[in-house]
Amino acid sequence: MAKRIVVDWGSSNFRAYRFGPAGEIAERHQAEAGILTVKDGAFEATLLREIGPWIDADTEILLSGMITSRNGWVETPYLDPPASIEGLAAAALERRASGGARLLFLPGICNRSPQPDVMRGEEIQVFGSVPAGDNALVVLPGTHSKWVQVTGGAITGFSTFLTGELFALLRQHSIIGRLIPPGPVAENAAAFRAGVALGFAGGARGLLNDVFTARAGALLGEFGPDEIAERLSGILIGHEIRAGLASATQAGQRLLLVGEAALLARYRFAMEGLGLSAETGPDHAAVEGFRRLGVLGR
Amino acid sequence: MAKRIVVDWGSSNFRAYRFGPAGEIAERHQAEAGILTVKDGAFEATLLREIGPWIDADTEILLSGMITSRNGWVETPYLDPPASIEGLAAAALERRASGGARLLFLPGICNRSPQPDVMRGEEIQVFGSVPAGDNALVVLPGTHSKWVQVTGGAITGFSTFLTGELFALLRQHSIIGRLIPPGPVAENAAAFRAGVALGFAGGARGLLNDVFTARAGALLGEFGPDEIAERLSGILIGHEIRAGLASATQAGQRLLLVGEAALLARYRFAMEGLGLSAETGPDHAAVEGFRRLGVLGR
Repeated sequence: MAKRIVVDWGSSNFRAYRFGPAGEIAERHQAEAGILTVKDGAFEATLLREIGPWIDADTEILLSGMITSRNGWVETPYLDPPASIEGLAAAALERRASGGARLLFLPGICNRSPQPDVMRGEEIQVFGSVPAGDNALVVLPGTHSKWVQVTGGAITGFSTFLTGELFALLRQHSIIGRLIPPGPVAENAAAFRAGVALGFAGGARGLLNDVFTARAGALLGEFGPDEIAERLSGILIGHEIRAGLASATQAGQRLLLVGEAALLARYRFAMEGLGLSAETGPDHAAVEGFRRLGVLGR
Repeated sequence: MAKRIVVDWGSSNFRAYRFGPAGEIAERHQAEAGILTVKDGAFEATLLREIGPWIDADTEILLSGMITSRNGWVETPYLDPPASIEGLAAAALERRASGGARLLFLPGICNRSPQPDVMRGEEIQVFGSVPAGDNALVVLPGTHSKWVQVTGGAITGFSTFLTGELFALLRQHSIIGRLIPPGPVAENAAAFRAGVALGFAGGARGLLNDVFTARAGALLGEFGPDEIAERLSGILIGHEIRAGLASATQAGQRLLLVGEAALLARYRFAMEGLGLSAETGPDHAAVEGFRRLGVLGR
């Protein structure tokens, strides 16, 4: 078997893993060499600068992340569900590095029905969280939260929610944000949970009205301006949880939270307030996913 | 009866109407002298500069708009529904100008149940659109769209939707906007109506996912990037219309669109695509509202 390297090459970061003969991660390298730092398409030169000593003509390099997007080295298509980790590796686009190494650019995954959706990178975390053959609804909270249905170890569908980005926009740029005191968000568990309950209830007036109540309630003295941010965050997360659960195609499956600890704690707290229970995925889901990818033949 | 003047004093504009003895508008004055242009609280000096010759000790001046907000001259409370135009005038806070004229600062209107909500200024357009004693669901599209329930000529409830502001934020600052070609929005009736249908359907995945589809669909080649803006606008307006109709407390009442012509055309087109019909309110609803206020005794 060829020497195998996996590179997780995003907008800001470059992370590489070299696999040993038993499929173990033998070496790691990380650098702030994301694709946005690469000038004039000098991707191969950057790769060699970062991990040149690992590479010879007999090396296979799997590349994942924004390096496979329109602004990256090689744009790969989106794979339709059901998408397994084996399918992901098999659909990679192959190129040769000038020294002869095989470059395998991984595809993204898309959803076409009921709504168009795309992911590029998060699937590695999903495959690193759910064992082969298993079922779960995997929740990856964040700027663009993903709720990913995994059935028999394959991604069978998913939905993206603009939760984190919308919170930031409303806080920084909207009329709602204008009433929020400057500085870090004042933690307020009760205000957050009240927002979650409002959003999760999915009242007839919907999100466009719910977010406005975070301003109006403060103007009417129902709560203080220091509660607006937490309430707003709760409203958006509550809407996401309701909609995410509705996206599940199987009842009663386990809910698996994957991501950065502080954000997971926030989602877990929101879910507990709604009487929902969720497991937490592995701490380093992406690394585990890359480990699985690293030992796959192709 | 005292001489009566009404001043619509907003953030950017100052508009004043002087009423004649028969209740007719005898004179108008407009200036870019909104409250944001007034330094050090010099509101009275600004008033006298703009319409001093209209004012003597026997004048009553009704003031409406942001001049009655926290950042204005005199902050007035919010009136609870049901709120009639007579109730609005009766709840005004009275002050005396240094020359003896009576200043009457009009209140805003609030909603406390089922959701906290506020308006300050739009109620004049509503009272200018619905004759005394009449019923209607008045729709004022805009940055913060208002759907106002009028029963027996009084405002009995309303909901605000962040539609226009959210569209601007998503277009200018979000990942969805990044794919939109720069320049004016390319008009595309089909894309707009597809968005309206999606938002109005209120699918289980909700607004946070619906807006993301406007990006994902373009990435998947389901439509061109030049359609994203119209689709996004449609999605938000579709959500607003569904939620606004749900806010109505009476079935089968007439829907009255009030506001600026181009925006009304957009909403009318959206509604027609949904099989809804709406009447259009008077062209100068605010002026008509002020005319009604101008002849009210107090």
